[in-house]
Amino acid sequence: MLEAEQRSFDGGAYTVLTFGNASGRLLSAPFFDKDLPFVEGVRRGHVVQVIGDVAEYRGRRQLRVTAPLRLLPAAAVDVTLLLPTVGEVTRYWEVLDGWRREIRKPRLARVLGLLYDDDDFRARYGRCPASINGHHAAIGGLVKHTAEVAAIARTIGRVSGADPDLVLAGVLLHDIGKLESYRWDGVFEYSDGGHLLGHVVLGALMLERRLALEAEAPCTPEERDVLLHLILAHHGRLEFGSPVAPMTLEAEVLHWADNASAKTSSMSEALREAEAFGDSLVSQRKFWQLDYRRAYRGVSDWGAPPAGE
Amino acid sequence: MLEAEQRSFDGGAYTVLTFGNASGRLLSAPFFDKDLPFVEGVRRGHVVQVIGDVAEYRGRRQLRVTAPLRLLPAAAVDVTLLLPTVGEVTRYWEVLDGWRREIRKPRLARVLGLLYDDDDFRARYGRCPASINGHHAAIGGLVKHTAEVAAIARTIGRVSGADPDLVLAGVLLHDIGKLESYRWDGVFEYSDGGHLLGHVVLGALMLERRLALEAEAPCTPEERDVLLHLILAHHGRLEFGSPVAPMTLEAEVLHWADNASAKTSSMSEALREAEAFGDSLVSQRKFWQLDYRRAYRGVSDWGAPPAGE
Amino acid sequence: MLEAEQRSFDGGAYTVLTFGNASGRLLSAPFFDKDLPFVEGVRRGHVVQVIGDVAEYRGRRQLRVTAPLRLLPAAAVDVTLLLPTVGEVTRYWEVLDGWRREIRKPRLARVLGLLYDDDDFRARYGRCPASINGHHAAIGGLVKHTAEVAAIARTIGRVSGADPDLVLAGVLLHDIGKLESYRWDGVFEYSDGGHLLGHVVLGALMLERRLALEAEAPCTPEERDVLLHLILAHHGRLEFGSPVAPMTLEAEVLHWADNASAKTSSMSEALREAEAFGDSLVSQRKFWQLDYRRAYRGVSDWGAPPAGE
Amino acid sequence: MLEAEQRSFDGGAYTVLTFGNASGRLLSAPFFDKDLPFVEGVRRGHVVQVIGDVAEYRGRRQLRVTAPLRLLPAAAVDVTLLLPTVGEVTRYWEVLDGWRREIRKPRLARVLGLLYDDDDFRARYGRCPASINGHHAAIGGLVKHTAEVAAIARTIGRVSGADPDLVLAGVLLHDIGKLESYRWDGVFEYSDGGHLLGHVVLGALMLERRLALEAEAPCTPEERDVLLHLILAHHGRLEFGSPVAPMTLEAEVLHWADNASAKTSSMSEALREAEAFGDSLVSQRKFWQLDYRRAYRGVSDWGAPPAGE
Amino acid sequence: MLEAEQRSFDGGAYTVLTFGNASGRLLSAPFFDKDLPFVEGVRRGHVVQVIGDVAEYRGRRQLRVTAPLRLLPAAAVDVTLLLPTVGEVTRYWEVLDGWRREIRKPRLARVLGLLYDDDDFRARYGRCPASINGHHAAIGGLVKHTAEVAAIARTIGRVSGADPDLVLAGVLLHDIGKLESYRWDGVFEYSDGGHLLGHVVLGALMLERRLALEAEAPCTPEERDVLLHLILAHHGRLEFGSPVAPMTLEAEVLHWADNASAKTSSMSEALREAEAFGDSLVSQRKFWQLDYRRAYRGVSDWGAPPAGE
Amino acid sequence: MLEAEQRSFDGGAYTVLTFGNASGRLLSAPFFDKDLPFVEGVRRGHVVQVIGDVAEYRGRRQLRVTAPLRLLPAAAVDVTLLLPTVGEVTRYWEVLDGWRREIRKPRLARVLGLLYDDDDFRARYGRCPASINGHHAAIGGLVKHTAEVAAIARTIGRVSGADPDLVLAGVLLHDIGKLESYRWDGVFEYSDGGHLLGHVVLGALMLERRLALEAEAPCTPEERDVLLHLILAHHGRLEFGSPVAPMTLEAEVLHWADNASAKTSSMSEALREAEAFGDSLVSQRKFWQLDYRRAYRGVSDWGAPPAGE
Repeated sequence: MLEAEQRSFDGGAYTVLTFGNASGRLLSAPFFDKDLPFVEGVRRGHVVQVIGDVAEYRGRRQLRVTAPLRLLPAAAVDVTLLLPTVGEVTRYWEVLDGWRREIRKPRLARVLGLLYDDDDFRARYGRCPASINGHHAAIGGLVKHTAEVAAIARTIGRVSGADPDLVLAGVLLHDIGKLESYRWDGVFEYSDGGHLLGHVVLGALMLERRLALEAEAPCTPEERDVLLHLILAHHGRLEFGSPVAPMTLEAEVLHWADNASAKTSSMSEALREAEAFGDSLVSQRKFWQLDYRRAYRGVSDWGAPPAGE
Repeated sequence: MLEAEQRSFDGGAYTVLTFGNASGRLLSAPFFDKDLPFVEGVRRGHVVQVIGDVAEYRGRRQLRVTAPLRLLPAAAVDVTLLLPTVGEVTRYWEVLDGWRREIRKPRLARVLGLLYDDDDFRARYGRCPASINGHHAAIGGLVKHTAEVAAIARTIGRVSGADPDLVLAGVLLHDIGKLESYRWDGVFEYSDGGHLLGHVVLGALMLERRLALEAEAPCTPEERDVLLHLILAHHGRLEFGSPVAPMTLEAEVLHWADNASAKTSSMSEALREAEAFGDSLVSQRKFWQLDYRRAYRGVSDWGAPPAGE
Repeated sequence: MLEAEQRSFDGGAYTVLTFGNASGRLLSAPFFDKDLPFVEGVRRGHVVQVIGDVAEYRGRRQLRVTAPLRLLPAAAVDVTLLLPTVGEVTRYWEVLDGWRREIRKPRLARVLGLLYDDDDFRARYGRCPASINGHHAAIGGLVKHTAEVAAIARTIGRVSGADPDLVLAGVLLHDIGKLESYRWDGVFEYSDGGHLLGHVVLGALMLERRLALEAEAPCTPEERDVLLHLILAHHGRLEFGSPVAPMTLEAEVLHWADNASAKTSSMSEALREAEAFGDSLVSQRKFWQLDYRRAYRGVSDWGAPPAGE
Repeated sequence: MLEAEQRSFDGGAYTVLTFGNASGRLLSAPFFDKDLPFVEGVRRGHVVQVIGDVAEYRGRRQLRVTAPLRLLPAAAVDVTLLLPTVGEVTRYWEVLDGWRREIRKPRLARVLGLLYDDDDFRARYGRCPASINGHHAAIGGLVKHTAEVAAIARTIGRVSGADPDLVLAGVLLHDIGKLESYRWDGVFEYSDGGHLLGHVVLGALMLERRLALEAEAPCTPEERDVLLHLILAHHGRLEFGSPVAPMTLEAEVLHWADNASAKTSSMSEALREAEAFGDSLVSQRKFWQLDYRRAYRGVSDWGAPPAGE
Repeated sequence: MLEAEQRSFDGGAYTVLTFGNASGRLLSAPFFDKDLPFVEGVRRGHVVQVIGDVAEYRGRRQLRVTAPLRLLPAAAVDVTLLLPTVGEVTRYWEVLDGWRREIRKPRLARVLGLLYDDDDFRARYGRCPASINGHHAAIGGLVKHTAEVAAIARTIGRVSGADPDLVLAGVLLHDIGKLESYRWDGVFEYSDGGHLLGHVVLGALMLERRLALEAEAPCTPEERDVLLHLILAHHGRLEFGSPVAPMTLEAEVLHWADNASAKTSSMSEALREAEAFGDSLVSQRKFWQLDYRRAYRGVSDWGAPPAGE
Repeated sequence: MLEAEQRSFDGGAYTVLTFGNASGRLLSAPFFDKDLPFVEGVRRGHVVQVIGDVAEYRGRRQLRVTAPLRLLPAAAVDVTLLLPTVGEVTRYWEVLDGWRREIRKPRLARVLGLLYDDDDFRARYGRCPASINGHHAAIGGLVKHTAEVAAIARTIGRVSGADPDLVLAGVLLHDIGKLESYRWDGVFEYSDGGHLLGHVVLGALMLERRLALEAEAPCTPEERDVLLHLILAHHGRLEFGSPVAPMTLEAEVLHWADNASAKTSSMSEALREAEAFGDSLVSQRKFWQLDYRRAYRGVSDWGAPPAGE
């Protein structure tokens, strides 16, 4: 039982489907004209039952479908069980909630609580991916990424003398716009609003809207601007989609922590793609997530005894 | 009676003040150490009474101050009388309100009315400059710029088949964030919020906030996103401060109309700066507003009778 | 009876032809080795008679050729009847000639008349496309684009105080180089001179050459330079192919009007490509004509009665 | 007793000296022609005794010299006592040496020991600044920066699953080239070799040279390349001076940790420059160390009791 | 008997092999599933014996394999006989050695002799290609390129008054890192060290290492830095992979001579690719080696008698 | 007797004149208010008689004017005697004419002769500078630069197999537009046409115009396009002012030869500016002509006997 995505070559000589489930992705063998009845009516995002076998073709595994795909009703399955996932996210919440309890600024704690003490928000935040097909593109990826950014930002903030409460606020708020920017039911996709407004501004609007619901303002206008700045500036530069560049120490800390989590995660995922390397230490592919760099996977033990990690 | 701005050279050998009033700017002769009592206590944005005479020094006029500057209380004067101004703005309102009455989409008209039928909004919009020191940097500059963009966008929209109502909505909304981004009491300056969030996002937040005040949503969420997109995308490219690039025909029309008004206004202002040209047809200065281009002022009549344009 | 263009995959497993006529483009089903006799001798730009049927393959229409293509002699057909076209161009000429009659500068009118009162020039200008495969890529596209630019430039010029006669001169002259830069017999292609010199400089050379034919110079050297500058600077920036950037108000006006016509036309064409959207409001394709942006086609009526525009 | 640096304006109307000592920098009042005997023979980097008084001139403190500067012999003073300093560096060494003892790879520990167990190396490394006039530009700045990078890299490495030993190796080796690239006797300056080769490559050459001194290679050629790559790639991109971009997870971790330490340090130093702000929350100056961004120093306590951090 | 490289399309419908030998490259006809036994076990870089015939398919020659490829043992053949080659390289050595004998600086001559009087170095240098698949990508390409750069640099150096000995030193040293950066046994490939460190820095390290072998330093440290600078700066700009930009006249001369040889060689190779032109004077392909420019091959004789060159 | 150029500081506290003659440039001591009668009526480009003395002020020579400047009538002096010059240019003409006589293509020789056999053209070409204030900015600089480019291009062309006649044609034609783009009477300046059209296109127009004067076309249209392409493409890239990039081997050769002459000339001039170095081997100034690089002037003799270069 698998999720399906269709591809076709220009000219349509054949079609290859990408099936995916929680454990990974697999391409089908090509479907030629005669095979088309097998895939009739299947569209991107549909959940299907597949009968076939996995074979190796010139060094790559592919799934040869031997019977027509059977389309399953959306309501019949929990599609997120079929998507890649980071697993249990409780540990990430524990880290984030623990640090949140250390906040010593009352108005700041209250603002964060408007979102982070809200069960519906937590339910969605705990499942949202951190990207569509880049770093942490998995159910639960966003909260995992947030916990990583928190750990890194905490260290950078301590080293540079930043305010730890504001740093944590930035960590918790910077990506909330992804809840409205992405869809993760069936496939990972941008919502229309995600395309039109982007997750950076969507996050600022979400915070603004949530604050407006309170009869009494939970913080001053100046404080609100500082929080909005943290969200807006977290991409660091205009050409990366931030409408303003960081002007506070905490925004600077957040920017580098976010980058560090995202880019090392992409590198680490690249190094796990065995097919990209073949027999070589240097990848034969250039990874778009790494700005088209290659990766090198060293194998030396530097003389260490093999027990270790 | 003039507005004053201080300058000093690194090392502080002397100080030059820039005085300004509604009719232009004038630099002072240098103040050396012995002259300092004349300028004691005067700061940028202060309103002062000046006694002195205007002389020419190597081809530039300068104001030689002959008595100590007299600081005037802020409440005693209408500082905007001392700032450059575009003059009476009624004509611009007439154009904009006239076209607004042509709107045939009820929900769109209602959203625009939330701002443009509000007297306080109109009072502020009618005085706000369109930039701090670039194009239309004058009291009333914003509404003049808006009327220009409207005229241009109307033509581009007609030619390209865009929806005229949405184009006008974009024209009227794209720069509303400048009301919170700039200050124009005494000198033209960025507000703190203008620095931290930028006028592009401030405009989106203003619209969001205003919509939230209505008990019943004046438009659908999808319609709101289309309006927010018009605001957010009007700079056209990420590196120019838009967090998203135009995705609708109306956003594309708005972007080019805005650019056309701003850039031709800068060129036209450059050509009026007689001092930049001296005796030449080509300016000796490269204008930063024109990305450091020079300007050329032709003088030929192409054989036309002199009876004026 | 159709125009044909060949494509082949690296490795040559099959070939797909793109057929085109005045109403659009259509891809063939793939030709495999056994089908090659069907396409023997057919080259890009040839006019052929096709027998076959149109079928749908995974959501795309394709033409299945059922008999060998029949090559038609070039002289036997008016190839431009087979190319996309903007239709009757009289209305564009009326706009341009009407505005040209308003010119009040005798020498300027005379220079423009050297080209625009010449029947051969008009015949070619009225059929030339405005680009090979971008905006207004159709027979008559250039004169349509010119009329659009004229309308937009007229408005921008009025708003910014530019000289209307010079603005119109720029509009009429800026793209004349395309007459020598493109070929539109059979397919739209660059001429060798178009590749080697570019339409910007070809236009300047054309004007220079035409002026040189007159026994008595129709304008002064300074005036000629102003016209040449309008042509050369119309792309606005060096990296876009203009060897000089605009230095006059009229050149600035022209640049933005040209951009506005070209880019909104591309956006508008993108929005009409139904296949790029499928069921979505956001295009699944990124359009190269829009610098790889996606497009969004809104569907809301904002509460307006359906009577249409 | 102070260090002196001379400045002069084009045209030479006057001269301003910048005096510095361990506690900061101070500009002199201008020296005009008549004052020149006071500064006779003083050159950049000289140590001088100054007699004068500090006064305020238009909001900036300046030092009015009232007697001729007295040049002191270089040998008579410990010039580094006159330079800005990070203070006692033992704590940084403790961190670095402590983590170094945790290394579990014998050959890696041995390579690092070749430098970090060498007393002469430690003496120089412990005094070298981390930049000439950017971040950590102080005696001891390099070892402080190294300890910061170590802390940050340790966290990023843990989060991303990098090899902790290789990450630490990168931290300890990445900036060793600064020992040959900078001079810190009197003033902070680039050495000629620093200009010609840059600290990135100088570091690689230093490691290569040190390894060559060992009779038996302390590591394999492949391992050496991995270490050299860490040094060479630490600026992350070609345009920032790295001849290769990071290809290993550890090089990626190092790059972001280095950036985070350097950039947040620059931001933090900018926020401490009271003169750049005057009465404002937003700096009036754009800091070159921050790519010409302004900085914002918030003052809100968010309702927290004043007992301080 | 040929070298083989495998390609496959995404989805794996078929496979095309590129065979190469000293006289060029040739693609195979596609291998479909049924043909797979023909290519069993063949990998990139293998030497194989091929039986088949060459046919034309839509204007391109392709090799139809009619019997299983026969893998040959690596030791059985001199693979470099199968690779493209520049032919006999003695003439290049004569030029370089001749000019080297003119050097009048003893220590410089000695340094160069450490490499260029070493037989093993000469053997490798004389076979190494100058690039993997760009300019001079052939056995012996590096020494040919070096002789070209020498001739060009000699002329530029004479015209600009550079030191001829240092210019020659730069020419001889700038690309020595390619010996460790490339592999040319079977196919042209980067070594792992080539990926990790790049040929620019590998060259600097090679020189450093060679100098370290001498008991007595053959030149002063300042002289060594000048030589290392020549190597490091030869790409001219940071974004092209030089960690420092040229600061000496000789480094500037070298940079332009290197560029001139590489880029005109690429253009000249592009013009020889008949398939890229078809019937046209302008190539239908944009060459990546020329930054995606097209090429034009003129055919005029300008009235010259045909005897010609 | 000297040429004069005025400078003034913002605020006008004083004025510094730059005097120049054929042997160099010298700045005046500052003129303060009281000194203004000395410089009354003197403007940029005027020829004046100066009485004064040269003194050293903080390491820079300056000219103290002790009597009012005396303005000389333009007709009374050969201003080019007062401008920097490359000296006698016969040797450059001999090189160029000698190589021109080797041309074996009759129509090409005839086209070049239209300009290069014209005495008026030669007179102007032989005096024109090669830039306003960059490389070869001296009377005769253009023909000197042309001879340098010829020598370099000849070598590059030989190495790369380019057509030597076309290469020489490109060398001789590429900069002819500078004759109309610059003025060199009194000071080096751009003409208005130079600003509006640029020397690249002015050169193309000059050639076009000259060819049009011939009753019978001296070459075919295709040949003319090849020559125009050589002129237009010689800056190599759009962002450097070429409206098209090189598409022929000869245009590529020309581009690199032109760059090599210009850039090494700038480097060589930078190294001769003793004031930029002071006591250092590395310049304290970054030269704008070298894209803000510093320069290094080595002093080692590498053990060579001192007997001159």
